[in-house]
Amino acid sequence: MIKRFTTTALVLGFCVSVFAQDAPDAAIVQKLRKEGLENSKVMDIAFNLTDVNGPRLSNSPGLKRAQDWAVKQLTDWGLKNAHLESWGTFGKGWQVDKYYAATTLPYYHAIIASPKAWTPGTNGPIKSSVVLIKADSVADLAKYKGKLAGKIVMMDAGAPLQSGLKPDFTRYADTTLAKMAEAKPMAPGARGGQRPGGANNMMAQMMKMREVRAAMSAMLVEEKVALILTYARGGQGTFFTSNGASYALDAKPVSPELEVVAEDYLHILRLLRAGKTVELEADIKTSFYDQDPQGYNVIAEIPGTDKKLKEELVMIGGHFDSWHAGTGATDNAAGSAVMMEAVRILKAIDFKPKRTIRIALWSSEEQGLFGSRGYVAKHFGDPKTMVLTPDQKKISAYYNLDNGTGKIRGVYLQGNAAAGPIFQSWLTPFADLGAKTITVSNTGGTDHQAFDAVGIPGFQFIQDPADYNTRTHHSNMDTYDRLVEDDLKQASTIVASFVYNTSQRDAQIPRK
Amino acid sequence: MIKRFTTTALVLGFCVSVFAQDAPDAAIVQKLRKEGLENSKVMDIAFNLTDVNGPRLSNSPGLKRAQDWAVKQLTDWGLKNAHLESWGTFGKGWQVDKYYAATTLPYYHAIIASPKAWTPGTNGPIKSSVVLIKADSVADLAKYKGKLAGKIVMMDAGAPLQSGLKPDFTRYADTTLAKMAEAKPMAPGARGGQRPGGANNMMAQMMKMREVRAAMSAMLVEEKVALILTYARGGQGTFFTSNGASYALDAKPVSPELEVVAEDYLHILRLLRAGKTVELEADIKTSFYDQDPQGYNVIAEIPGTDKKLKEELVMIGGHFDSWHAGTGATDNAAGSAVMMEAVRILKAIDFKPKRTIRIALWSSEEQGLFGSRGYVAKHFGDPKTMVLTPDQKKISAYYNLDNGTGKIRGVYLQGNAAAGPIFQSWLTPFADLGAKTITVSNTGGTDHQAFDAVGIPGFQFIQDPADYNTRTHHSNMDTYDRLVEDDLKQASTIVASFVYNTSQRDAQIPRK
Repeated sequence: MIKRFTTTALVLGFCVSVFAQDAPDAAIVQKLRKEGLENSKVMDIAFNLTDVNGPRLSNSPGLKRAQDWAVKQLTDWGLKNAHLESWGTFGKGWQVDKYYAATTLPYYHAIIASPKAWTPGTNGPIKSSVVLIKADSVADLAKYKGKLAGKIVMMDAGAPLQSGLKPDFTRYADTTLAKMAEAKPMAPGARGGQRPGGANNMMAQMMKMREVRAAMSAMLVEEKVALILTYARGGQGTFFTSNGASYALDAKPVSPELEVVAEDYLHILRLLRAGKTVELEADIKTSFYDQDPQGYNVIAEIPGTDKKLKEELVMIGGHFDSWHAGTGATDNAAGSAVMMEAVRILKAIDFKPKRTIRIALWSSEEQGLFGSRGYVAKHFGDPKTMVLTPDQKKISAYYNLDNGTGKIRGVYLQGNAAAGPIFQSWLTPFADLGAKTITVSNTGGTDHQAFDAVGIPGFQFIQDPADYNTRTHHSNMDTYDRLVEDDLKQASTIVASFVYNTSQRDAQIPRK
Repeated sequence: MIKRFTTTALVLGFCVSVFAQDAPDAAIVQKLRKEGLENSKVMDIAFNLTDVNGPRLSNSPGLKRAQDWAVKQLTDWGLKNAHLESWGTFGKGWQVDKYYAATTLPYYHAIIASPKAWTPGTNGPIKSSVVLIKADSVADLAKYKGKLAGKIVMMDAGAPLQSGLKPDFTRYADTTLAKMAEAKPMAPGARGGQRPGGANNMMAQMMKMREVRAAMSAMLVEEKVALILTYARGGQGTFFTSNGASYALDAKPVSPELEVVAEDYLHILRLLRAGKTVELEADIKTSFYDQDPQGYNVIAEIPGTDKKLKEELVMIGGHFDSWHAGTGATDNAAGSAVMMEAVRILKAIDFKPKRTIRIALWSSEEQGLFGSRGYVAKHFGDPKTMVLTPDQKKISAYYNLDNGTGKIRGVYLQGNAAAGPIFQSWLTPFADLGAKTITVSNTGGTDHQAFDAVGIPGFQFIQDPADYNTRTHHSNMDTYDRLVEDDLKQASTIVASFVYNTSQRDAQIPRK
């Protein structure tokens, strides 16, 4: 059984037993801090990823633009072999070419919404009364049969909004971090940590709604419904997109569908429940892209220079794809920009690493960590059979960032207790920047899991929650405005330092 | 000089010196509470004002619909002489018939915005690159001369957004209320209280921007600019509308203009500052209404029944008009609904008042308290000359509500210290509902000032701030969703009780 250790134990451990090699090099730390904190380009990178190139839905033109930009940028900084590498077959790309919808009865009101990903458009302007479908099952739909052709429909569901009694933006309190540091390793086979703020009651309710609606989907297509309005979680002009329709090349046809900001959805719902007539006009155009169904990751390297160790790897990454309603600033242009900035910093101080440093910007994380899983399967092994490649032994560690704009507060060890004292040591020069917590806990929901699944030390950093769960995660308001410059500078500097240390360390990071 | 009194003094004063007539009638209070808290219709009234009838911009069709509904509803409840009464000439009505705008370069993105009130449409779909105007003065505009025809333009101004470190929704702390209670009367001639959260730095900056732009306005019209984009205060999908263009019948022509949510405005601004091309398409249609330039208030009465006192009046009111981007739920469907509900409650308990009770739902408050000032000028006197009508002596008090959805916490005495002990006594049965604070302070910015200006005791209640200043006041998110049912029930019940007490009191409310 893995020994429990606490922060105190770790600090003591560091004082008496950490290898000398894990004491950070003060001169290098100073260089990294100077470049990372005083000459940062992280906001410029983030600007290009978000404002300039736009949303980066898997296989969309926006993702391709951003990927091409990243390959060029990484090359311009002097990284080697920057390229797009296929991880396998994804499916269709998709983007919004036009979105317009408004109520025209009882009065004119333009609606805040977005087409649901991978849904078709309206094939020109439409106008129709809105039909409220009260159905808990497919059977309940019988009464609407033959009545829905050309109609705009919505389900009789949607939670009233709550007042904002708590701040949108929070940082971890010291007490919370202390609790994290005291976590025990999980028993083998136990389920890993949750991504912060994942499932909640609202989500559960929406999942149920979605199940019912999925069952209705074919019927609504058959009925030739003109448009479905769906309640989107959020409020106050912010709405969160949920999973879209199928992106498979052979996906069944679905109806056009909008995810509607809560205020506008509830407005229509209240009117229909009260028996009023609501009429809507809409004009939605979306495009599909199926010429190249392959999914691609951006890969680039700083080659290793040590005769023996240059065949070994340190990898860093984050997912590059996003949802489409915002520009995916915190999910995950932030993590991508930090990782790009980390390698820029290392090039800027003219670092010649012993081990090769490889950056990977994944795609299709949002559909199931496809980019990282595909990459790992190709390069390192199969997590089901645990048939591993020789390269699996040559990678020391993989570091990931994908929890928004919040600064780094520490590292999730993902159950790898032996890495704790090393990382604790590496964090010491950044205690003044708020990063000092090591937790043996897992965190889930993103790409380090692909590495962890084949026995490679894969880590995600602890980040301040910021407004990730309240405002930005998959929302239309996940824009450049939400990025906190100081936090991204801090994160870039710390990641650069971790990469530096991992590439120079005599031994690889210990494995579980 | 008016004597300073504190909460303690008031409570003591009440115990020893308040007229017996000001001790609330427990049986009546119970009836009012039962009807107001357990059989409330206030949310139904608010639903009709917001969801059903829509935004109520001065002289718009939406205002007319809501006014007609209110006249009918008040009549249905048994009020007498419910009618629309002109307060004077306003100008043109206006409404949005279509709003659509989106960037098409560097990529497609639909924009959250609203036409600025009383601006023209685009006369069909337009598409143009966006020109960034860097000008601090009209002189700076020379370099753009001849280059702006058909272009979409924006100013080089807009504050970066701040993270939400504080809750949107707040209630007054006991300490804040205690401080209010300890306020001293202002010296005669000193400026009255500010409306909560009025001017701040952002507003000041916007005022400056607006000044410059007002000076540019004629030039932009002359250049035949296709559309102006203006930064709207707010964020996260919420935007606050500012004053619109002129509604005068002989208003000079202005350019089409959008108030754009901060995220979308700053997105375009950052791209233009970086030298990128931004292209926009838009299709905006607005209508003007000038057939009847008169402004109207809704007026209705519960006639007095006391032989002598029925000639006297108790008035209550709130403004009925709103801005156009939301449905004016907290500004001021909330206050209007509470006042309507208060008279409904009084009718429901079959109250036969001694003095006549008159409800007034004002229009054009948002443009300068026109409805109430016009009414007061016609009925009670001229605040400039202080030539007063005989009716000025017959009105005991006017009570107003116009600070959002927050429950009543007490009363602003508006410097009328003599009314303090009376109101303190009237509040005692509502201490359990959080209403117990009397402050001698003024509060400004709304219709009780019209009465106060001609020497009539005019009061506005203290209300919890809720999310009035953070989210709703003049915003596109001022919707039914923002209304807090329990708070509106509480307010209706307390207002009904104040009206009851004022109508039955032997003497009128003392004057300043």
